[in-house]
Amino acid sequence: MKAFVTGAAGFIGSNLVDRLLALGHSVTGYDNLSTGSESNLCDARASAKFELIRGDLLDFAALQDAMRGHDTVFHLAANADVRFGTDHPRRDLEQNTIATFNVLEAMRHTGAERIAFSSTGSIYGEPSVFPTPEDAPFPLQTSLYGASKLACEGLIQAYAEGFGIRGFIFRFVSILGERYSHGHVLDFYRQLLDHPDRLHILGDGHQKKSYLHVGDCIDALLMAMEKTADGRVNIFNLGTAEYCEVRDSAGWICARLGLHPQFTFGGGPRGWIGDSPFIFLETSRIRALGWKPKLTIQQSVERTIDFLQRQTSGAEAGSGDGVVRTDRVRGQ
Amino acid sequence: MKAFVTGAAGFIGSNLVDRLLALGHSVTGYDNLSTGSESNLCDARASAKFELIRGDLLDFAALQDAMRGHDTVFHLAANADVRFGTDHPRRDLEQNTIATFNVLEAMRHTGAERIAFSSTGSIYGEPSVFPTPEDAPFPLQTSLYGASKLACEGLIQAYAEGFGIRGFIFRFVSILGERYSHGHVLDFYRQLLDHPDRLHILGDGHQKKSYLHVGDCIDALLMAMEKTADGRVNIFNLGTAEYCEVRDSAGWICARLGLHPQFTFGGGPRGWIGDSPFIFLETSRIRALGWKPKLTIQQSVERTIDFLQRQTSGAEAGSGDGVVRTDRVRGQ
Repeated sequence: MKAFVTGAAGFIGSNLVDRLLALGHSVTGYDNLSTGSESNLCDARASAKFELIRGDLLDFAALQDAMRGHDTVFHLAANADVRFGTDHPRRDLEQNTIATFNVLEAMRHTGAERIAFSSTGSIYGEPSVFPTPEDAPFPLQTSLYGASKLACEGLIQAYAEGFGIRGFIFRFVSILGERYSHGHVLDFYRQLLDHPDRLHILGDGHQKKSYLHVGDCIDALLMAMEKTADGRVNIFNLGTAEYCEVRDSAGWICARLGLHPQFTFGGGPRGWIGDSPFIFLETSRIRALGWKPKLTIQQSVERTIDFLQRQTSGAEAGSGDGVVRTDRVRGQ
Repeated sequence: MKAFVTGAAGFIGSNLVDRLLALGHSVTGYDNLSTGSESNLCDARASAKFELIRGDLLDFAALQDAMRGHDTVFHLAANADVRFGTDHPRRDLEQNTIATFNVLEAMRHTGAERIAFSSTGSIYGEPSVFPTPEDAPFPLQTSLYGASKLACEGLIQAYAEGFGIRGFIFRFVSILGERYSHGHVLDFYRQLLDHPDRLHILGDGHQKKSYLHVGDCIDALLMAMEKTADGRVNIFNLGTAEYCEVRDSAGWICARLGLHPQFTFGGGPRGWIGDSPFIFLETSRIRALGWKPKLTIQQSVERTIDFLQRQTSGAEAGSGDGVVRTDRVRGQ
């Protein structure tokens, strides 16, 4: 496989790059380094089969040039910020919808055959069926992020029908693990670094959420693409067969850190506008291919905390590659 | 109501403008006249309550200026060309998805409260349930047009959730009637003007399609917005409770014109890539509000042919407002 990975310097992208290289594939990463970090690609850069191109998906000419000669595109670059979508509505349109259109156009012009796309469980809005299957009732979007991912899915499907590419659409729950850089575990960790005696939780803490470890996520991507021989458009939910409350996760985080803070709550069933109070995906379709996650939600949360602690220690020791620095913690 | 109508010079838009003016509302039309025609607004321009602004939805500053002071937006402007989407993929992205984003942003900045949006039955792709209800299983898109309308729907829903506007989304079957300018009735009519002895039909002619008269369509829009007191996002299928085969429609057209051409067929279940071989929408939701169409599909086809004939006669008499001219007929 000659793989082209957008968002290669990001959390999931860099983990995928490492895995693809370990499997012997050639990999080109494409990233504008706006939120990704070159330090995530230290291992990859040691490989002769890896190249990183710094470029923006909105620069169509550069994207097309970079994509030439690749057969499989893993399109992971995105604005992944669900919570603050309403602060800058154009960002989801540009970085998700238009960026994905450019990726598909570049595929059409360069002859790349397959695309794997990181969609989201948020696409189901506030579903009425749990666990939510891929063919759930036609959903209503509740966030600009979900709406933009819906737009991307539609584009991939239409390109598959119109131009014969093959599309693999993965609707992720929230992903945890090494190089995690965004979400409630980091928010809680930063709070507890700053004030170990108290933790503020958005909403009433009873929001029910699902999480998956990045290693299990990548297992699923690669297995689905290997084992799905036919089918122009293949859609898979990815998640564990369990969910937890945000309070549970807060408890695991505090226990891992040996802290006993007082919890305070924002109140209400949602953490923010567009937050889904219950995410739990039906994953029998991907399980039927033989996949199952190796880690529970609790194990994934604990590994993520361990990673953040190593990162903090590294930064304090002056290694310079840490994301979590005290000034940034204080800035939260 | 102070209404702002995008695509006001188009087929459905101009009919809506006339109706709103007849009901005593103030109406601003916004149209770039790329496919719409000023001649559609001859009656409207006689009203002191109507203003036409020539502008493009991709010109955000102009759009925002024009929208100021309006409470209700009817967003009908679109690239409505389903069939040739793959010839110019960027067109649906720009004229539908990005244009709708701009409309929503302009609403947010100007304080317009409600949007009525012309979506499409094509959004269901090739559905598995007939008649297809609004909460059908999460569909797969088969056309760039459908994908772009899906993107628009998601944006409207997210803006309703995030910014408190009210959205009315109408999934139309194909609309027929006076000022009709695009679709199979016009294609067949032009062919028969050019060569009355033969008619070529795309696909095998057994495609099952639904149609609705523009007057019935506008009745439904206004009734839904008047009678749906609550609900941030209101989605309605619009169509007759019947469908016909393309062969049936061809037969009605020929009978209306007094012609007996030989039919030839392109073959296959679809007329083109992305053509849905069966469109039949469940309309009990809008019917529950008291709406029902006044015209059958056959009556709508016949009225459309009568309109096209009047238009051709007008053009031949040199009135200058006809869309169907011989040179354009020959060009088909």
